[in-house]
Amino acid sequence: MFIRNTWYVAAEPQELDSGPLGRTILSTPIVLFRTESGQVSALENRCPHRMVPLSLGKVVGEHIQCGYHGAQFDAQGSFKLVPGQTSLPNVCVRSFPTVVKHGYIWIWMGDPEQATDLSSIPDFMYRGDHPEWDGGYGHFESIQAAYSLINDNLFDITHAEYVHPGSFGGEEMRIYRRSEPGIDFIDQKMTYDIQEREITFRLRSLGMEHGGPFYRWMVSTGMGVEHYSGKVDLDMRVDWGAPSFTSFLLNARPHGEQADRGVQVCNMHAITPETEASSHYFYRSVKNYGGQELVGPFIQGVRAIFEQDKPILEAQQKNIGTQGIAAMRPVSFAGDLLFQKARAINEALLEAEQALAPAVTL
Amino acid sequence: MFIRNTWYVAAEPQELDSGPLGRTILSTPIVLFRTESGQVSALENRCPHRMVPLSLGKVVGEHIQCGYHGAQFDAQGSFKLVPGQTSLPNVCVRSFPTVVKHGYIWIWMGDPEQATDLSSIPDFMYRGDHPEWDGGYGHFESIQAAYSLINDNLFDITHAEYVHPGSFGGEEMRIYRRSEPGIDFIDQKMTYDIQEREITFRLRSLGMEHGGPFYRWMVSTGMGVEHYSGKVDLDMRVDWGAPSFTSFLLNARPHGEQADRGVQVCNMHAITPETEASSHYFYRSVKNYGGQELVGPFIQGVRAIFEQDKPILEAQQKNIGTQGIAAMRPVSFAGDLLFQKARAINEALLEAEQALAPAVTL
Amino acid sequence: MFIRNTWYVAAEPQELDSGPLGRTILSTPIVLFRTESGQVSALENRCPHRMVPLSLGKVVGEHIQCGYHGAQFDAQGSFKLVPGQTSLPNVCVRSFPTVVKHGYIWIWMGDPEQATDLSSIPDFMYRGDHPEWDGGYGHFESIQAAYSLINDNLFDITHAEYVHPGSFGGEEMRIYRRSEPGIDFIDQKMTYDIQEREITFRLRSLGMEHGGPFYRWMVSTGMGVEHYSGKVDLDMRVDWGAPSFTSFLLNARPHGEQADRGVQVCNMHAITPETEASSHYFYRSVKNYGGQELVGPFIQGVRAIFEQDKPILEAQQKNIGTQGIAAMRPVSFAGDLLFQKARAINEALLEAEQALAPAVTL
Repeated sequence: MFIRNTWYVAAEPQELDSGPLGRTILSTPIVLFRTESGQVSALENRCPHRMVPLSLGKVVGEHIQCGYHGAQFDAQGSFKLVPGQTSLPNVCVRSFPTVVKHGYIWIWMGDPEQATDLSSIPDFMYRGDHPEWDGGYGHFESIQAAYSLINDNLFDITHAEYVHPGSFGGEEMRIYRRSEPGIDFIDQKMTYDIQEREITFRLRSLGMEHGGPFYRWMVSTGMGVEHYSGKVDLDMRVDWGAPSFTSFLLNARPHGEQADRGVQVCNMHAITPETEASSHYFYRSVKNYGGQELVGPFIQGVRAIFEQDKPILEAQQKNIGTQGIAAMRPVSFAGDLLFQKARAINEALLEAEQALAPAVTL
Repeated sequence: MFIRNTWYVAAEPQELDSGPLGRTILSTPIVLFRTESGQVSALENRCPHRMVPLSLGKVVGEHIQCGYHGAQFDAQGSFKLVPGQTSLPNVCVRSFPTVVKHGYIWIWMGDPEQATDLSSIPDFMYRGDHPEWDGGYGHFESIQAAYSLINDNLFDITHAEYVHPGSFGGEEMRIYRRSEPGIDFIDQKMTYDIQEREITFRLRSLGMEHGGPFYRWMVSTGMGVEHYSGKVDLDMRVDWGAPSFTSFLLNARPHGEQADRGVQVCNMHAITPETEASSHYFYRSVKNYGGQELVGPFIQGVRAIFEQDKPILEAQQKNIGTQGIAAMRPVSFAGDLLFQKARAINEALLEAEQALAPAVTL
Repeated sequence: MFIRNTWYVAAEPQELDSGPLGRTILSTPIVLFRTESGQVSALENRCPHRMVPLSLGKVVGEHIQCGYHGAQFDAQGSFKLVPGQTSLPNVCVRSFPTVVKHGYIWIWMGDPEQATDLSSIPDFMYRGDHPEWDGGYGHFESIQAAYSLINDNLFDITHAEYVHPGSFGGEEMRIYRRSEPGIDFIDQKMTYDIQEREITFRLRSLGMEHGGPFYRWMVSTGMGVEHYSGKVDLDMRVDWGAPSFTSFLLNARPHGEQADRGVQVCNMHAITPETEASSHYFYRSVKNYGGQELVGPFIQGVRAIFEQDKPILEAQQKNIGTQGIAAMRPVSFAGDLLFQKARAINEALLEAEQALAPAVTL
């Protein structure tokens, strides 16, 4: 069961530069393409003639052409040409609403009537097209783990101390377990704020002598030095939005410096379910300092970090199987507070959607 | 459900030169072998002792020897030797009728009583052993697509314009959609003739300035020139026979030349179901001109062309799944006429067979 | 259905030297580890928090630490630490009795109350820690064949003439079919003795001019010559113990030499079911002569020999599928006597266990 009446990231814009792209989303094979005039479209990836994926075809002007017998469809999935015949079949390839926003192509897999509401695209995913920030994209296709497990992973930073000790995970991660409601940055505390479909938490650690090496590296690169060896001040703001968006805004500076003079990095993550037990994971890393030469290391860094999570997530999914983790009655730790809140929000969204209309089946 | 009371290609003759060959046919594991005296045999690929595939053993004189404990069976599947014991089990490995004809080893998977009727082996598959034609063999093992989808593909040449523009597919393919019943070659027309279990169509295109590059290449190689740049005349005769045989007889010549002075190539294709959703594809390319040095390019060409079809067919099968394409209510194009006739012939054969006897189960 | 109230080989001791080891045993994911003080432990390979395999973590002192959130468990599976919280969950990871004996780590997958009985660990598996014998270990992980098929294979030496003619399998293997009850070595005969859960057979072949090349090689290496070309005397004692242990004790010497002056090699084999249709195969080869330089060739030899069995066993399993070989009503050969006795012993053990308690399900 998927939440359908919400926007998911379908693709990075440049993925459509070389023609149609096939990708399974919410267990549905989708073809994404951009027409000559720039219109982005998502259709079911199946020509109604012989069921061949349209992603094996090509874009011809404003149409997509099936690679098998040359039939053409417009961006809404209507037949526009069947080679050698004048009448056109009166059927449509199912189409899905898309929108380009905040640097991604988004898709709506639910009731098309409701797709006009863009509010489920979180504003904290904005920095990709912000003039004062630059950075890059990356993604992992078909991670063999349910989107909810990746969601837990990204949002629950306590794992970083054990999985990512060489980058994000220092002892400052333990602050995550000293939480209280609030919207302020408080040294050695984590404050959190829960909204209808968003959760934000803030974590501050001043005067760090050790800690995650990544934060020290931010300060060093920000100062243009090989290695800054003094104490570090860190602010971390994490925004999560239902069903599967997480943004980490990091601010690091030499100890005692004003927060507004810190260098900032924002890592944004979007998970799109491929099937009930596999996912596409899109990420971006943007920064407000340094030149273009820093983009590569940042993006490769996010990739390398997820390469550490991937075997854990896939082994976790394999242990869980098809039943879902709740059926296994997992033990809770104190640090689970926020990802459990996030799961509760997603479950409520799913229930509300199911109550209104039975599951859309394809 | 398979048509069983018919002959299928089981193997190319030379495939048995190096010993027993295991191949799944109609979902049944089969071992094919040739005894010392040259008798070809097909048995269920399973020793009745410990169920090890007999294809892991070897031919010993007139017998096949299991590779595990050395039991020997004759070409009819009877025990002939159990090492170290004098009495032999009174059971038989199931055997299947085989025949060598028109350059292939054929197998009969249905009622053995009816196997004496060789009429389902189409005569248009003859050219492999014709003295005035020479050529070569090739095959693809275990294509992940139902035999019927490959059948459609081979028989429906309209796809060549989109899938094979560099070889068979030029604008002359569009003639296929201008069809009328008949048995004559008519310029810019396709005539077709439907018999009980065969369909033939003829297509003529005179004075081609462009068109599929393969036809021009035939003319060039026939004239012994690097590149013939004049107009080309083409006759194409396609014979299809149930359940899954297709022969393309091509005649190409410089424009205005008599048809009987054209050079001819015949590409023959036989599909043998491996399972309900996978197939073995056997092909031959023979020609009546040129020397042995032309055989390689022809055979490699047929292979390269099917390499273009393979990803389409396998993606098509994946989109269809186990239900069969009819259950998905596909849209029909005008160009589907003949492969739908072919499908109807196969369905009638299957129904007739089912009516006479319930499905043979193994 | 597995026999559970018995000891299986879980691992070679040195496999735990580099940290926790994940291995599926009787369809249950298990983590094996050795604590700093040397205690060996087997737990279900699943942290009860987020179901991540504990084998992805590490040993910390006397505990195993989950690699995801750092929770620690003692060797009995009790929570000992949850980072950042003082109360510990009152649940346990399921633990399994283990014992180190005769050079292996053994695991008990059945009723823990009965695990104190070590009698199912056969004494004929002893030679690994015998001061006068030296040798080495090897194993194959996840052979795609039921343990019972590998059991049959190891215990039924008639296959060696066909599968291993270059090593163990000469004409002397035929003696196996000239069997009579007894416990003596009789030239050109095989005597066998059947106990409650053990079967022993002895086979003697004196004055061999040909025969399995391995026995001649034993004599040559024992004499320190390049190639001994005289006749060979061979004694072979095979002990099988339920459910899946087989030991081959070979004694080879120049013809006419006293048996107690022959050189001896003992190859021991233990099969542990991974799933109903796959197995782990552990082997050791030890000898009572020659130096350390002979260990490598012996162990590589056993490996090479099983590489010949593996394709047969896996193809056999594939032909059988999930139904079990008995359902296919296999034909019996005279040489099947002993492995059928062994199968009967295992079936009786399983039935007795099922009668006492319904299958333990996890």
